[in-house]
Amino acid sequence: MTAKDARISILGLGVLGGSYAQALSAAGYTNLCGIDINEEYVSIALEQGWIQEGSVSAEAVADSELVISCLYPSIFVDWLKTNQDRLTPGSLLTDVTGVKRSVMDEIHTFLRKDVEYIACHPMAGRESKGIHYADAGRFSSANFIIVPTEENTEYAKDTMISLAKDMNFANISFLSPEEHDRMISYLSQLTHVIAVSLMNTNDNTHLVKYTGDSFRDLTRIAKINEEMWPELFLLNRDYLIQDIDSFIVELSRFRDMIASSDVEGMKQKMIQSTERRKLFDVEN
Amino acid sequence: MTAKDARISILGLGVLGGSYAQALSAAGYTNLCGIDINEEYVSIALEQGWIQEGSVSAEAVADSELVISCLYPSIFVDWLKTNQDRLTPGSLLTDVTGVKRSVMDEIHTFLRKDVEYIACHPMAGRESKGIHYADAGRFSSANFIIVPTEENTEYAKDTMISLAKDMNFANISFLSPEEHDRMISYLSQLTHVIAVSLMNTNDNTHLVKYTGDSFRDLTRIAKINEEMWPELFLLNRDYLIQDIDSFIVELSRFRDMIASSDVEGMKQKMIQSTERRKLFDVEN
Repeated sequence: MTAKDARISILGLGVLGGSYAQALSAAGYTNLCGIDINEEYVSIALEQGWIQEGSVSAEAVADSELVISCLYPSIFVDWLKTNQDRLTPGSLLTDVTGVKRSVMDEIHTFLRKDVEYIACHPMAGRESKGIHYADAGRFSSANFIIVPTEENTEYAKDTMISLAKDMNFANISFLSPEEHDRMISYLSQLTHVIAVSLMNTNDNTHLVKYTGDSFRDLTRIAKINEEMWPELFLLNRDYLIQDIDSFIVELSRFRDMIASSDVEGMKQKMIQSTERRKLFDVEN
Repeated sequence: MTAKDARISILGLGVLGGSYAQALSAAGYTNLCGIDINEEYVSIALEQGWIQEGSVSAEAVADSELVISCLYPSIFVDWLKTNQDRLTPGSLLTDVTGVKRSVMDEIHTFLRKDVEYIACHPMAGRESKGIHYADAGRFSSANFIIVPTEENTEYAKDTMISLAKDMNFANISFLSPEEHDRMISYLSQLTHVIAVSLMNTNDNTHLVKYTGDSFRDLTRIAKINEEMWPELFLLNRDYLIQDIDSFIVELSRFRDMIASSDVEGMKQKMIQSTERRKLFDVEN
């Protein structure tokens, strides 16, 4: 496991990178280096005491035992292509990207053999971007998913478990890249596509005063970071399109029940959805 | 306006009828009669002091200045056909049904001319059914919608306003039957169809441990009262099917942007949904 005084570099001090720095410093890590092209973000992290060293330059990554990329997927891959020579032999590299197969496959084609990459996904994103929204407190109700390959060492896996525990994540689990991307397609990406599309179905702004909880709940995530999500959708395109298509089939089935006055059919659908949804209540 | 000692009968002591009795008794109404075929519900309302008189028989409606139906739409219409002779000449009749055009049209074909029906929709439903879930406290964040026709008197409209104020509703507004049903189709019925269909798209119960807020928010209303909603959907079928179809068109458009890697198109959709959704935040 990485010692608490080992040099750890965090690439990108946005909402997640900032939260990582906050969580790790609070957990007693004392040699944290934050790197971001945005000078203001670096200053904020330093002022808050979340990092001991800050830089706008990739050079600062030198001599790190662990590098954590909190960059968007394509920026992460580009950064790595340009800067992998700066990584320490025998060091660990991890990330936070929300899709796994494509990112992992691409990195494995070019990564130095003396650096071990272990993919992770802390499921603690939010709609707002930037270090101003960093909040490590959110980790205590979030899942931390480790997505190892057969090449990953026990040391790397144990280090990720210990890191997630130190950051106070609620649950830590292991998934294969395929399982992870299937899960994220259905639970997260499909829901965002639905919320955005519902909001865009018609000009509904005159209905604001009549809106109740159900519409607000269904569209909360229609406030969405347009810089990040299209990329995530494309990197998981095969599964996501399958899920959208399955959802449209199911929705059309229900539509046809309405059209044909199939009350019994609708009731069965509602009984099934009620039963299933109960399992997802937080208290379970 | 109805005096606070005037006899008011509430038909149906379910979640809404129970809440009405609770709210009106708390507001100082002293001559409330609750009618329900479920003897237990009547007993509970009496024990709670929400009504002064209770009955399982329609006969109890006699001599009321105001009758409030808190029954499901078809039960309300059937009840009225059978029992309208029991209504007091010159009295008012109102309801709480969630769709308006069809119910109002049908009632106007047969209702006695010496009773005035004024349609209302308190937007304070919830997924649970029965008097045990009655909670008038929910009215303070809910909309009360009055849906008058040209035949309705100022007296009837004023009485409904005063009733809604006494029950502490957050907002009181007037809509035509068409405006109401359009609004309810998009904001409420379409959202329920989406939630149920998302929950039924595949067997997702193994994903419970990975579920975050977005999926929970989108499917909360997939726990649904299967006795009531199919009827409401059918009574608003024309608008609801239009809305489902428009939503599928919009969703398919987004799907095709993913399939064709149209990042710029997705961004524009997300910027639009973000802008619109901000208007719906509760603080506005």
